[in-house]
Amino acid sequence: MPLLDRAHCEALDVQDPLAFARARFEIPDGIVYLDGNSLGALPKATAARLEMVVKEQWGKDLITGWNKHGWVDLPRRLGARIAKLIGADADEVVVCDSTSLNVFKLLSAALSLRPDRHVILSDTGNFPTDLYMAQGLSDLLDRGHKLELVAPEAIVDRISPAVAVVMLTEIDYRTGRRHDMAAINAKAKADGVLTLWDLAHSAGALTVNLNGTGTDFAIGCGYKYLNGGPGAPAFLFVAKRWLDQTRQPLFGWFGHAAPFAFETAYQPKAGIDRFLVGTPAVLSMAALECGLATFDDIDLAAIRKKSEALGDLMIELVSQECASTGLTLASPSVSAERGSQVSYAHDSGYAVMQALIARGVIGDFRAPNLMRFGFTPLYVRYQDIWDAVAVLKSVLAGAEWQRPEFNRRAAVT
Amino acid sequence: MPLLDRAHCEALDVQDPLAFARARFEIPDGIVYLDGNSLGALPKATAARLEMVVKEQWGKDLITGWNKHGWVDLPRRLGARIAKLIGADADEVVVCDSTSLNVFKLLSAALSLRPDRHVILSDTGNFPTDLYMAQGLSDLLDRGHKLELVAPEAIVDRISPAVAVVMLTEIDYRTGRRHDMAAINAKAKADGVLTLWDLAHSAGALTVNLNGTGTDFAIGCGYKYLNGGPGAPAFLFVAKRWLDQTRQPLFGWFGHAAPFAFETAYQPKAGIDRFLVGTPAVLSMAALECGLATFDDIDLAAIRKKSEALGDLMIELVSQECASTGLTLASPSVSAERGSQVSYAHDSGYAVMQALIARGVIGDFRAPNLMRFGFTPLYVRYQDIWDAVAVLKSVLAGAEWQRPEFNRRAAVT
Repeated sequence: MPLLDRAHCEALDVQDPLAFARARFEIPDGIVYLDGNSLGALPKATAARLEMVVKEQWGKDLITGWNKHGWVDLPRRLGARIAKLIGADADEVVVCDSTSLNVFKLLSAALSLRPDRHVILSDTGNFPTDLYMAQGLSDLLDRGHKLELVAPEAIVDRISPAVAVVMLTEIDYRTGRRHDMAAINAKAKADGVLTLWDLAHSAGALTVNLNGTGTDFAIGCGYKYLNGGPGAPAFLFVAKRWLDQTRQPLFGWFGHAAPFAFETAYQPKAGIDRFLVGTPAVLSMAALECGLATFDDIDLAAIRKKSEALGDLMIELVSQECASTGLTLASPSVSAERGSQVSYAHDSGYAVMQALIARGVIGDFRAPNLMRFGFTPLYVRYQDIWDAVAVLKSVLAGAEWQRPEFNRRAAVT
Repeated sequence: MPLLDRAHCEALDVQDPLAFARARFEIPDGIVYLDGNSLGALPKATAARLEMVVKEQWGKDLITGWNKHGWVDLPRRLGARIAKLIGADADEVVVCDSTSLNVFKLLSAALSLRPDRHVILSDTGNFPTDLYMAQGLSDLLDRGHKLELVAPEAIVDRISPAVAVVMLTEIDYRTGRRHDMAAINAKAKADGVLTLWDLAHSAGALTVNLNGTGTDFAIGCGYKYLNGGPGAPAFLFVAKRWLDQTRQPLFGWFGHAAPFAFETAYQPKAGIDRFLVGTPAVLSMAALECGLATFDDIDLAAIRKKSEALGDLMIELVSQECASTGLTLASPSVSAERGSQVSYAHDSGYAVMQALIARGVIGDFRAPNLMRFGFTPLYVRYQDIWDAVAVLKSVLAGAEWQRPEFNRRAAVT
């Protein structure tokens, strides 16, 4: 097979049906951004939108903005946009709070539907905050719930009628390994087990089909592939069949049937709104709406196809260019089993990643030794993969990563 | 006594030691804004700050912004600013989530410190979301906790060793009636009862002294007198004596001892950080920081003094100008017993308020019949009170408030 080169990658960009979408983002010159799986890039529309919301809506209309500019509808309006990206109906999704808090709400709701079961099943690769929220809820309930963690590949076999909820993240944040959502949901359904999926690394990058796979509950993140900005609000999904028979314990006024009646007793609103708690974060939601608008007129199947192709290209190029450099592929090599990222283990992964970032190739590091490279199909180009691997090759061949400043751990990795 | 007139009010503005602070805000021309107790006005610095955070920090530095621009420190940095406004130490306050969620955290924490007591004592005038959160938590715990609601004036007498927590809002959101925090805290302490204060209508408007009055726990709002913008993040306070012996049940990764170690078991961080849950909302917090900066070099005692004077002036002018118009003062007439608002009951309060708003005098309405006028001493002038009462007089004398459009209830009141 002939060696791949940059011209080959440029040719792929020319043929890319999503190439036009990069213009929707501000990507700094000289940067190859492969960390949209951690924080999505800035959409071009966001700054002007925020300025308008701040200066015109808040500044001039003050309190009347709640009605006049539909601030009160933001959780549902954004939820309806996200629903299209995850195979859900508009009235099953709402934007609110953080992913952690939404895990708490939906896990409580699910456990209350299975009062005689006490096992919460998850895997050792799940994102820690999901596991922590389950621990906190179990401690609080003090009714013998147990968070059982098994290896990801053991999940299907461990599903049984003793399990109340199986709570998983579709895409492993470290390795990009993908769970088979349809197979797990089918086994769960057969055993009366409820499913709670974390779509943090799925929504906006994969063709998620929550209703098609019979998912019960799901949550996801606004600041990764959805481009909502640092700390953007999260979302949650509740399948229609559970909406009106399920409650969550965080009884806030925005989940009340009549918030502006100011009654002293809580009555949940009908439908998905009962999963809201406090006052919607208008500024953050305005920014997230611009992130979601970057998906307008975009074919989700094309996103997934490009995501797989970018990952395959990265793996090929690293094999070709970086043989015997101490890198070990930590992601599935088969694209169908992978999310939109590729991770490599390296003994000095932290320092190497800092050296890459200093040279303008931005990925990130996950303990103990993983370098992650994420691919946002809306703005990452094939030529970016070439450039990233070229810099990686150069960094690994040199000694710059041994500099002290690349070996000091920062607060956020 | 001679009648008061506009010239008298203008003279008060000339002597006002806080008059300079109005220039820190964007107040639209022709508007008298008396609803800063619901949504604070836009600080002049906010739009430029948000533009900088969006375009420069997020847009150019992307994921590296977390370390480079101290995003990760925002909850503590803003907490330290708020601490100065509420008589707390910098390491006792943190900004996060919504007031509702913070009630849940601190009420859980408090109940776990009093495992043998099951009464949560509050008053019938408390803001509903606080009561709802207590109901949700009690339901979830299912251990016989009872939310006992009594009239505000009966609180002190109902405090007893049977009570676990007394949970109150210092200033009644409807009437502005003020609780005696020091007296209630003293009685609570004597009976081993923990105190949880909601400072939604206090922080930034009153001289709150949490540590001076021996408060155990408190929460408050970022979008009222703190000018953080619609849906701004909230804050919480935990007295130092409880910090390390208290846990809250919403175990999120930002409350973990080592969030970037990605351990599967939750270990709370030392100190106030354990009350954090998910990823900080950077954009919203940047806006709130500008709101808090409007208090730089401002004497809190002068704020309270002006707040009382504005309320007294409103009451005097309404007496003078609007006698026999169907208005009944619903707030304490003695300023020391009142927060920074004055409310009037009127049979057609909703419609009258809409007519006022249409004429540029913005207050709000609270069911069943209250018109609320709030005073933010940093930007409300004495002449504004004159102008508001003049318009109120004119509206009450005419029939415009009977128009259909003023009688249709909007989603948010």
